[in-house]
Amino acid sequence: MSSEKTNQSWGGRFSEPVDAFVARFTASVDFDKRLYRHDILGSQAHARMLTQAGVLSEAERDAIVAGLDEIRREIEAGTFEWRVDLEDVHMNIEARLTERLGVVGKKLHTGRSRNDQVATDIRLWLRDEIDAILVELNRLQAGLLQLAETEADTIMPGFTHLQTAQPVTFGHHLLAWFEMLSRDHERLVDCRKRVNRMPLGSAALAGTTYPIQRQVTCELLGFEAIGGNSLDGVSDRDFAIEFCAAASLAMMHLSRFSEELVLWTSAQFQFIDLPDRFCTGSSIMPQKKNPDVPELVRGKTGRVFGALTGLLTLMKGQPLAYNKDNQEDKEPLFDAADTLRDSLRAFADMVPAIKPKREIMREAARRGFSTATDLADYLVRKGLPFRDCHEIVGHAVKYGVDSGKDLAEMSLDELRRFSDQIEQDVFAVLTLEGSVNARDHIGGTAPAQVRAAVKRGRELLAKR
Amino acid sequence: MSSEKTNQSWGGRFSEPVDAFVARFTASVDFDKRLYRHDILGSQAHARMLTQAGVLSEAERDAIVAGLDEIRREIEAGTFEWRVDLEDVHMNIEARLTERLGVVGKKLHTGRSRNDQVATDIRLWLRDEIDAILVELNRLQAGLLQLAETEADTIMPGFTHLQTAQPVTFGHHLLAWFEMLSRDHERLVDCRKRVNRMPLGSAALAGTTYPIQRQVTCELLGFEAIGGNSLDGVSDRDFAIEFCAAASLAMMHLSRFSEELVLWTSAQFQFIDLPDRFCTGSSIMPQKKNPDVPELVRGKTGRVFGALTGLLTLMKGQPLAYNKDNQEDKEPLFDAADTLRDSLRAFADMVPAIKPKREIMREAARRGFSTATDLADYLVRKGLPFRDCHEIVGHAVKYGVDSGKDLAEMSLDELRRFSDQIEQDVFAVLTLEGSVNARDHIGGTAPAQVRAAVKRGRELLAKR
Amino acid sequence: MSSEKTNQSWGGRFSEPVDAFVARFTASVDFDKRLYRHDILGSQAHARMLTQAGVLSEAERDAIVAGLDEIRREIEAGTFEWRVDLEDVHMNIEARLTERLGVVGKKLHTGRSRNDQVATDIRLWLRDEIDAILVELNRLQAGLLQLAETEADTIMPGFTHLQTAQPVTFGHHLLAWFEMLSRDHERLVDCRKRVNRMPLGSAALAGTTYPIQRQVTCELLGFEAIGGNSLDGVSDRDFAIEFCAAASLAMMHLSRFSEELVLWTSAQFQFIDLPDRFCTGSSIMPQKKNPDVPELVRGKTGRVFGALTGLLTLMKGQPLAYNKDNQEDKEPLFDAADTLRDSLRAFADMVPAIKPKREIMREAARRGFSTATDLADYLVRKGLPFRDCHEIVGHAVKYGVDSGKDLAEMSLDELRRFSDQIEQDVFAVLTLEGSVNARDHIGGTAPAQVRAAVKRGRELLAKR
Amino acid sequence: MSSEKTNQSWGGRFSEPVDAFVARFTASVDFDKRLYRHDILGSQAHARMLTQAGVLSEAERDAIVAGLDEIRREIEAGTFEWRVDLEDVHMNIEARLTERLGVVGKKLHTGRSRNDQVATDIRLWLRDEIDAILVELNRLQAGLLQLAETEADTIMPGFTHLQTAQPVTFGHHLLAWFEMLSRDHERLVDCRKRVNRMPLGSAALAGTTYPIQRQVTCELLGFEAIGGNSLDGVSDRDFAIEFCAAASLAMMHLSRFSEELVLWTSAQFQFIDLPDRFCTGSSIMPQKKNPDVPELVRGKTGRVFGALTGLLTLMKGQPLAYNKDNQEDKEPLFDAADTLRDSLRAFADMVPAIKPKREIMREAARRGFSTATDLADYLVRKGLPFRDCHEIVGHAVKYGVDSGKDLAEMSLDELRRFSDQIEQDVFAVLTLEGSVNARDHIGGTAPAQVRAAVKRGRELLAKR
Repeated sequence: MSSEKTNQSWGGRFSEPVDAFVARFTASVDFDKRLYRHDILGSQAHARMLTQAGVLSEAERDAIVAGLDEIRREIEAGTFEWRVDLEDVHMNIEARLTERLGVVGKKLHTGRSRNDQVATDIRLWLRDEIDAILVELNRLQAGLLQLAETEADTIMPGFTHLQTAQPVTFGHHLLAWFEMLSRDHERLVDCRKRVNRMPLGSAALAGTTYPIQRQVTCELLGFEAIGGNSLDGVSDRDFAIEFCAAASLAMMHLSRFSEELVLWTSAQFQFIDLPDRFCTGSSIMPQKKNPDVPELVRGKTGRVFGALTGLLTLMKGQPLAYNKDNQEDKEPLFDAADTLRDSLRAFADMVPAIKPKREIMREAARRGFSTATDLADYLVRKGLPFRDCHEIVGHAVKYGVDSGKDLAEMSLDELRRFSDQIEQDVFAVLTLEGSVNARDHIGGTAPAQVRAAVKRGRELLAKR
Repeated sequence: MSSEKTNQSWGGRFSEPVDAFVARFTASVDFDKRLYRHDILGSQAHARMLTQAGVLSEAERDAIVAGLDEIRREIEAGTFEWRVDLEDVHMNIEARLTERLGVVGKKLHTGRSRNDQVATDIRLWLRDEIDAILVELNRLQAGLLQLAETEADTIMPGFTHLQTAQPVTFGHHLLAWFEMLSRDHERLVDCRKRVNRMPLGSAALAGTTYPIQRQVTCELLGFEAIGGNSLDGVSDRDFAIEFCAAASLAMMHLSRFSEELVLWTSAQFQFIDLPDRFCTGSSIMPQKKNPDVPELVRGKTGRVFGALTGLLTLMKGQPLAYNKDNQEDKEPLFDAADTLRDSLRAFADMVPAIKPKREIMREAARRGFSTATDLADYLVRKGLPFRDCHEIVGHAVKYGVDSGKDLAEMSLDELRRFSDQIEQDVFAVLTLEGSVNARDHIGGTAPAQVRAAVKRGRELLAKR
Repeated sequence: MSSEKTNQSWGGRFSEPVDAFVARFTASVDFDKRLYRHDILGSQAHARMLTQAGVLSEAERDAIVAGLDEIRREIEAGTFEWRVDLEDVHMNIEARLTERLGVVGKKLHTGRSRNDQVATDIRLWLRDEIDAILVELNRLQAGLLQLAETEADTIMPGFTHLQTAQPVTFGHHLLAWFEMLSRDHERLVDCRKRVNRMPLGSAALAGTTYPIQRQVTCELLGFEAIGGNSLDGVSDRDFAIEFCAAASLAMMHLSRFSEELVLWTSAQFQFIDLPDRFCTGSSIMPQKKNPDVPELVRGKTGRVFGALTGLLTLMKGQPLAYNKDNQEDKEPLFDAADTLRDSLRAFADMVPAIKPKREIMREAARRGFSTATDLADYLVRKGLPFRDCHEIVGHAVKYGVDSGKDLAEMSLDELRRFSDQIEQDVFAVLTLEGSVNARDHIGGTAPAQVRAAVKRGRELLAKR
Repeated sequence: MSSEKTNQSWGGRFSEPVDAFVARFTASVDFDKRLYRHDILGSQAHARMLTQAGVLSEAERDAIVAGLDEIRREIEAGTFEWRVDLEDVHMNIEARLTERLGVVGKKLHTGRSRNDQVATDIRLWLRDEIDAILVELNRLQAGLLQLAETEADTIMPGFTHLQTAQPVTFGHHLLAWFEMLSRDHERLVDCRKRVNRMPLGSAALAGTTYPIQRQVTCELLGFEAIGGNSLDGVSDRDFAIEFCAAASLAMMHLSRFSEELVLWTSAQFQFIDLPDRFCTGSSIMPQKKNPDVPELVRGKTGRVFGALTGLLTLMKGQPLAYNKDNQEDKEPLFDAADTLRDSLRAFADMVPAIKPKREIMREAARRGFSTATDLADYLVRKGLPFRDCHEIVGHAVKYGVDSGKDLAEMSLDELRRFSDQIEQDVFAVLTLEGSVNARDHIGGTAPAQVRAAVKRGRELLAKR
């Protein structure tokens, strides 16, 4: 009655061993070994709880805890031998434990299943990842605040439809990115609440007959709550999908940010300079200095959207409870977390090094009738309805396009052809400073508002 | 200087009218007219604020507010003429207002832009939709609790890999769905916080030169906070994407729920009956009674995933601030909200009408060696390590498969062939009731735990 | 034994009518009525075949064919009453036919099912849509060839990483878009082969007991082949997904095309002008002329990607054969086809109206060391290894960045600081014309190659 | 003027080296080294062409070709040192070549760029992958034909809506999968045409000034055609997306196939048995034998859909020509190809081992009024309109549900209660064999048709 040729963790009822290709195809150890640290943490907490529950003796617990510590050290030293025939990180570690401890090692799996074990491991892992991502996010946001403060008075053209719209301050533009990232931070924090719930104790699907004390493992592992239903506990992958959705939004923001950095470093914009150390060159064109980091981050957006699509597809239509399909949850999740973390890190490093070319920005704002709205508003203040003012200025702009003159370059006589309400004081509202300073309400582009927003931003970061 | 042939809201600087096909292609009124009620609410609040800010007189405000009320009535009576040449819901309503009020109507747009106006409208709309969705979600969850309580003692096979795993109670299974929906509720509530922030006052992109009082409109419209950056305010569509992500998760849950209902109404399972009123027949096969509602909901999952993909794609790589691309945000969002709401409604109606076939469920649980884990646990309690017990039972199961006997059908002698630790008391643990009752910890399948979980669920609903 | 309260097409075995909300929720007539013309065509062919097969008399056939023609006229005249309680386009038309013809109308459904009927309808519909899309695609490609020929000698900067790379001709750039669209054409033609296969005769799922002659309907309906398996015939939706994938690729191309048009109409690039009739303005900023058509098309890319994701999700994991889920195939498919067709139409109209600003393009090419590669190639011809030349020119560029001089602006002495192989003849290779003319091989940017490619393109279009 | 601290392939114009994290973040060698074999093939063909073009001497060519062969051997022997600071597979190989050959190695890159080089490599790689995938697809299809022939007479219930619909033959059901895979084969062959076009010669973006002979490399590398536009040549990734779309469809088919295998191995269906070697067990439930392979393949569907979404996102909105974003094309493509190939391999191995349980299938077909349509057709042949027959049989089924009798179990008297057209000969049409044999037209389920379809299938495979 040997099980030599079959898998040691479940071979009893099987007549023939798993096909060699199938064994490789269905094994997960190549990627789930990444969870080793959290697997060991979970096992140690489980062993401690089993002792409190009277299932393991104190000596058994101590042997297990110490044995697992030793295995962690082996893994970190690179001396641990990972075996594909043992399928996954869990069986690899348990087999090694049994090899070291004998019969005691076999007792560790009492009252749990790989189904609740892996769900626990991956939540512990993701909790750590989120925390690390939040650190990078914070660092990037702090960098944006710093730069926004420095550039609170710098004027650039604001765009809609990539057409010159109205003058804005560069600081104000930077703070738009800050706002996006603040929402990403909120979403990750909201997601973390739902990650940080404990499935351990769900066992295979129905709970266990052992007198487990879930509150004990919950506290030992720092979970905020215990999952309320065992069937759900082993099959829920919401937390991974919600994380990928939050990561997709964050990457989408970075893709917009990247798009602008790429535009701004082009010969046509020249709004900013990026230091050489964030750029690479061309193997054939000697003059090239390419904004690789933003381009690559923009490109990486796709892989995180892909991870989200993949996980949603994975879970669609699955009956309860655990199905083997769920093994496919890890790689997209790992990849999404790594991508977001690295992209944020690259941006956090790069943002403080952005060098605005203030004169070029200012000159660009001067062109393109960017103060046309200010002229319309001026006419409104003279008593005309907004819609009529809009049309009057539209005609003035048409004249400007044809004659090659911006509004501020027209004489009072020229301007008065379009409305006799226009007087000498119009030229004050047509300046760039006049335009930005006039938008002086919360959320507006005035330098004073930028400074106030930086202050609010710093308070927000301080409270985290 | 006529603008007859060009669009009345922006034609001044244009030399030729928009191409007829282009006008139709770029117009949004066919779908955004759905926002009329929220557009009017927003405009009325804006008019009230403009009066407080000294921009409009009280008489102008009153005329505008009353005029907009009248337009709402026209729209709801079906007498309002929507014009594609006026592009969108905003211009249609404003044009009608001006038609009614003359010059006063033209003043309404002072200090705002369609960019912040539409962002405000769609947030107000989505806030209402979320609230309506939460009502259906609540109703569905209450139905599940009711059914779970009734079926707390009903035994069915629990599945993993769609193979018989362990006996569970039907009530417990129903509560797994309850848990999923609770997380969906949380996510929608979290999302609503971010929906409920006010972009109004961002104007075109940079704020406005009028002395607007954003706190006033914020309070009038019931927003929780004012958007802190105008560039972000007009271009942020996170809230729509986050909603679609939450809706995708909820639909994914309903797809799993649906999958099980479809399985359970098949001739092979026959676990439940659905009343005729939730089913349809076949035009060719006279005997058919198809579980159309769950099938259709499972199918509709795809359209919500598609909306999410579409919106993420939409925003990827867009430079600031508003671009015309953003007009494409509405249809997927509308469709996702409608789909989720209708699907929840159909399920909330249907769930209380599910009729379990208890005898068939129980019989299914009896088959398939569902108490094999209980036998292993029994042996652990006799002092053997879990891994060894697992193997012993594996061999017993193999014998059972070959001899056509379930574990409870073997004699003591037969069982003892596999371990002499097995004694007469084994037969108690091999019963279905013994198995489910033994899993008596929080989250476990024991009937007592199901009742406790129903109680917790009722408290949760009561607190919402 | 009345079926009044239940659906007339399948009510016999039902005890209660369908719930009113469920009836609305599960009905498809609101969107599938769009298939009426193809439904009628399919029914007429089916009736003709049934007569050849001896199932219907010639008189019955003639009554049915004429009756269906009359119904089509009613629908097109707007006098046909669509009823939601009749579920779909098929039952609406059949019920009306029976109302007109009595018992003969009821015979039409002999030997078929709605399952194969709808699969046939939608393929006929999509075949027509593809043909209409190919017409627009052709028109757009012809416009590109025309413009490319006119602009074969126009020089602009070619970009990689949005950095100035090498001079290219505008004609060459336009032909890159032509190439993309050629592949889209190929893919749609390949897809059409698989659309144009006939499921009719699959009946509900297993074929039919009537002596149907599938070759007859196949020929009458212009299908290329008969579907070889009835289970597959009623459940296959590959053709819709493949179409959406081809449409997604085409929209992706239009999104890239759009991105460039948006960039090129910006104040920073100013490479082209779009006529006013393809642009719209701003309700608040009177100077704005926004490239709405390309922006909107770029935005619409998302909805087609979404349709693809939705349909893939829909089909994932469905067991055979037809499931109600499949009803969800139509709306995304309709939307994807409409979007692609309209987007191509808008571009086909717009492309001939693109006005290049040749002087600005040329000036932009002159800047940015765009002929640096030509200098490296020059040095290679002097006998140095390419990698060394690259480095030499890199140093020259660095000097140019620091001193504000482009390569052509340096003196021979300055250039010789970097390599003494540089002689007077270098200035010929540093000109824009020299650079583009030198790339004179198939696929290269030389004006002669552009003209040759236009010729090849015209031949390709002529052969379609 | 040392470039030691900067990248050797493009460092000349740079003032500071790339940041260490950025270097790692932007490097691709970790994954693109997989292309080494195709990179070397492409370089060898390029060197041969350069000799024909008079750019390299024959001795230089021979040294390069031999040097590259040697490098391939080093890589395959595991002795090649991959360096992240050399960015990618191309620079790693070229640097090693130069190390070995000195100045001659530096000449290899003449007349090309990494932009066209990588586009060439990846197409060569994908062409090979497609061919390998087609081999597995073929093998799987052959296995299906074999099993279908063996099971041509085996009767099982055909399902729609997972409800018993009509009896079908198991062979017929297997051939539905065969049909799906045939379309997948067609699509991959169509895709391969577009993969197999040569971008080499596009150089960086505009072609090259060297007298390259693209027809020579095209023939040496076995490409079917030369890419007609250099800008398109370096930036086109359609082939990768089209492949992922075809792979997504194929995986979708395997997911449906998997779903059915999972259902059929459940205790409720028991239609088939899968050998132990394609299943795995549970670490906690000793009786479990889980159909891991189909479950995992169903789960893997998500990752291929995700790759497709990722690549579409990647390309959306990218301006011409090459951007760094494109580096992100490889990992999703590699993963999609590996996943499809392995999944097909697993299925090709598994399908011949499927063991149908014929008695259980037959018994399931006997239940559920599966011959109700046959009864309706019988009545049609007696002269009643189909719709009336449908209703008559509907009432008979309702009686059967209430009385617990299937149609064949009712007496003639009972049946005649619903129509006096029913006579003794009805019982022949109510048998399972009568039902399947009667569907005897192309695509129908009759055993004769299954055999004919197997014959057609074999001819199709033989012609490939």
